[in-house]
Amino acid sequence: MKIHYAEMTNHLGSSAVRDILKVTQGKDIISLAGGLPAEELFPLEAVRDAYDRALAGSASSLQYGLTEGYAPLREAVAARLGRQGISVQAGDMLLTTGSQQAIDLFCKVLLNPGDKVLVEAPTYLAALQVLNSYRADIVTVDNDEEGMLPEHLEEQLKLHRPKVLYAVPTFNNPSGSSWSRERRERTVELCRRYNVLILEDNPYGEIAFDEAPGAYPPAMAAIDRSSGEEPCVVYTGTFSKIVAPALRTGWITGPSELIGVIAKAKQAADLHSSAIDQRALYELLQHFDIEAHIRIISREYHSRMKLLAGELSTARWKAASFREPRGGMFLWLELPSGINTSRLLPYAVEQGVAFVPGEVFYAANPLKNAMRLNFTHTPPELLPAAVRRLEAALENYERTLARAADTLV
Amino acid sequence: MKIHYAEMTNHLGSSAVRDILKVTQGKDIISLAGGLPAEELFPLEAVRDAYDRALAGSASSLQYGLTEGYAPLREAVAARLGRQGISVQAGDMLLTTGSQQAIDLFCKVLLNPGDKVLVEAPTYLAALQVLNSYRADIVTVDNDEEGMLPEHLEEQLKLHRPKVLYAVPTFNNPSGSSWSRERRERTVELCRRYNVLILEDNPYGEIAFDEAPGAYPPAMAAIDRSSGEEPCVVYTGTFSKIVAPALRTGWITGPSELIGVIAKAKQAADLHSSAIDQRALYELLQHFDIEAHIRIISREYHSRMKLLAGELSTARWKAASFREPRGGMFLWLELPSGINTSRLLPYAVEQGVAFVPGEVFYAANPLKNAMRLNFTHTPPELLPAAVRRLEAALENYERTLARAADTLV
Repeated sequence: MKIHYAEMTNHLGSSAVRDILKVTQGKDIISLAGGLPAEELFPLEAVRDAYDRALAGSASSLQYGLTEGYAPLREAVAARLGRQGISVQAGDMLLTTGSQQAIDLFCKVLLNPGDKVLVEAPTYLAALQVLNSYRADIVTVDNDEEGMLPEHLEEQLKLHRPKVLYAVPTFNNPSGSSWSRERRERTVELCRRYNVLILEDNPYGEIAFDEAPGAYPPAMAAIDRSSGEEPCVVYTGTFSKIVAPALRTGWITGPSELIGVIAKAKQAADLHSSAIDQRALYELLQHFDIEAHIRIISREYHSRMKLLAGELSTARWKAASFREPRGGMFLWLELPSGINTSRLLPYAVEQGVAFVPGEVFYAANPLKNAMRLNFTHTPPELLPAAVRRLEAALENYERTLARAADTLV
Repeated sequence: MKIHYAEMTNHLGSSAVRDILKVTQGKDIISLAGGLPAEELFPLEAVRDAYDRALAGSASSLQYGLTEGYAPLREAVAARLGRQGISVQAGDMLLTTGSQQAIDLFCKVLLNPGDKVLVEAPTYLAALQVLNSYRADIVTVDNDEEGMLPEHLEEQLKLHRPKVLYAVPTFNNPSGSSWSRERRERTVELCRRYNVLILEDNPYGEIAFDEAPGAYPPAMAAIDRSSGEEPCVVYTGTFSKIVAPALRTGWITGPSELIGVIAKAKQAADLHSSAIDQRALYELLQHFDIEAHIRIISREYHSRMKLLAGELSTARWKAASFREPRGGMFLWLELPSGINTSRLLPYAVEQGVAFVPGEVFYAANPLKNAMRLNFTHTPPELLPAAVRRLEAALENYERTLARAADTLV
């Protein structure tokens, strides 16, 4: 039979990242494409103990739970955020199926088709997909490595009267860059002045390479909440990167009224997320030193990033450029302007290496000559080989380009 | 700051069931309101073992998984459905966060505002909420205890050209009734003729009180798939009632193309549901006799239903009427037409008993004098007291009605 879909399905792109992952699965390919944490660092035994504890009590742990999530875990997350300078009430927080669901529900209750949303460029691919699925009108704000440019931000605020600003200001996916304190402050100030909600998406903030106190600016949510005014920053985070993704547990916190509306939307969407996973995470936080664990993974990721950066700093790469990220999971590599990384990708896969072409991370006017490289999932001993394969792919690709140019002459 | 919500939030009712549950929580109230299974029958130790096994292998069990869900569990669910006469491929199935998410995603990818959807009356409250959130135009088809009336169904199909028909044809929530084989066949036939997708929601079908082989008609999905034509029935089920709700694992199966589109929508909504819960359920199915467990809970629920039905068959209740459900979790009680069960509810809560007023289960023209009674969650020894409290509430309510009538005279 002929199925007639909703209009929204015309705006549901599949994720290029996932399509690439599908192609590369099970083959002899070193993939720097996925946004995956290192499996060998997952605290498997501690997680196993945590589930055992979570299921050691009464059978009521298996019953339906609250839409907002398991209250002790909300309290524990609120307490952790408090120690990070973000003062929130557990009652103003909702637990979600990963922070992806937080982004989706936030957009669902706020955006009508045609509503304007400001984003940085490049930005998180799956957030662009959610925004497109609600048929938002996505508007890019110019930025440099310090964050959005305040003058352009104010211009766009005046011109477009957007409803929402979405950003990943700390160890951005894909660019790896982090906003300065001043840019964070200016963004909060401007958005408050123009009555625009900010969704600060911070899945990577705790994967910080510099351990010196005060090495990083505070979250925009912390700046916002220290102002004494009503919050305009909605903040989402996740256990996916600091514990493990399979538990699918994230959170969203913001103005009480908004969280109440999101809870109603979540009730219709799935009643609640897995209560067992939430209980297990609560037990994990009680019996496992998660702060020490985060230091361990951050140090290891730092060392892998350094290794990758070193491999990309040889003479062969002198025409390319990148900045070392100060945390997170990605390195953003810009090649000479003549190189189209989407066209380069099949050459790379042929050589046995994968990356994500930069252009997928833009709502408009993509940079065609950049790529996102993940340095956390690939075992470090394979990183040099990955870069050698990338070099071979580049050589083949450039040779083809040169041949095509010859033909034109 | 002033938050401007999306239009959809004007169509997001909160669940009356949940609001009542909130009022009754932690008080000395016997609640027949919630749709909760019996906690004391949850296979807690087997579930605990299952998580232990799920986490005994490699750390890759904690990594991101496929949007469609853990493949071995999909295979196992497809095999169980096959044994129930519903022949499906695991590849045409998606695992969801409970069957609630299956209903939500199905509606999300199919319904534009104003699209017509056919439902029975009464029907599942949270499905009405989802339909309203997508601003569907909900149209009721007349039914009796055997199911939708084919003549009226055809009339509505011709008149409204609906996109979707939603039904809970087996042990309906809230009515407890089940459609006959003939009505199932006619409904599938008519919907196929008018190119309308059926969403058959079957969370209760396995909670069957009659153990004789062939005691029940097949699922509409089974009838549909045995026709040799392209399927028009999309089928959703869940582990919430046969294992436990906290694992939040349901499934949806239907035409490949539709499942592919739903997978894209799910990817944007939450990437995937908890992979650990899915692995644990797979382990549970391997090492625990779930069929024997389902017989145990079905027998216990049957005996509780009989007990409740007995308490409601005394002389005091001769003006009320109900049919004994042949499975599921609910008994639908109709009181004399002068009694408004929404107005009765506060009297009941005062007496220490709760139920769900029937009117919330209708899209339009609600029956005002009915109530949904859950017989699975309350310990059987409390059921007689619950009915005595209901009797006291009715007496108080009727006395007040009589006084009001006196005043009018």
